[in-house]
Amino acid sequence: MPNHQGSLDQVFHALADPSRREIVERLAGGPASVSELARPLEMSLPAVLQHLQVLESSGVVVSEKTGRVRTCRLAPAALRAAETWLGAQRTAWERRLDRLGDVLASHGSGEPAAEGEDRP
Amino acid sequence: MPNHQGSLDQVFHALADPSRREIVERLAGGPASVSELARPLEMSLPAVLQHLQVLESSGVVVSEKTGRVRTCRLAPAALRAAETWLGAQRTAWERRLDRLGDVLASHGSGEPAAEGEDRP
Repeated sequence: MPNHQGSLDQVFHALADPSRREIVERLAGGPASVSELARPLEMSLPAVLQHLQVLESSGVVVSEKTGRVRTCRLAPAALRAAETWLGAQRTAWERRLDRLGDVLASHGSGEPAAEGEDRP
Repeated sequence: MPNHQGSLDQVFHALADPSRREIVERLAGGPASVSELARPLEMSLPAVLQHLQVLESSGVVVSEKTGRVRTCRLAPAALRAAETWLGAQRTAWERRLDRLGDVLASHGSGEPAAEGEDRP
């Protein structure tokens, strides 16, 4: 899935900046205008717009302009893709530790591991 | 938590590259030597070492040298920190949608929302 791969690159890149994570945290609580997002960040409006552009191209944020106000909101699918990838690595790692624990336990008891024991 | 903040920057940056994610996926299945990690990646050994350095400074990977072999393994705490942050944003977002759903449902039924209904 080259498309998905590409978007994971962009999502992780977008989240690698503390100001962009602050914007995401703000938007997780609900949509906000660009000036509302800019207020707590100690930076110029062009700098904020640049961060928003990175978040938009990664698919983490979408925005819509009504009159003179641009409203931003979270598009959670991109964040979910990143969370799913991280969860898959953790699960693979934990499964490996479980298997290792079984091997060590069976060695400790002096008995060979019962095949498939406690495993679905 | 400036330290934690800094490491989230580094973890997300480390994961923003497809080769580094491939290394993480490989290590989620168990420790591997640098040459084992390099084999499936179509790049020079110095390039692989550079990727490993980014993964190590982010805390995602640790390595140990025994004789001439450097063995790498996953240090899952860093990945867990990233997963936790993503999960927190998703939870905040979903809670907001739940509240919004309650408001819409109460409007649809023509009754005001019962305060605290179905809320802990």
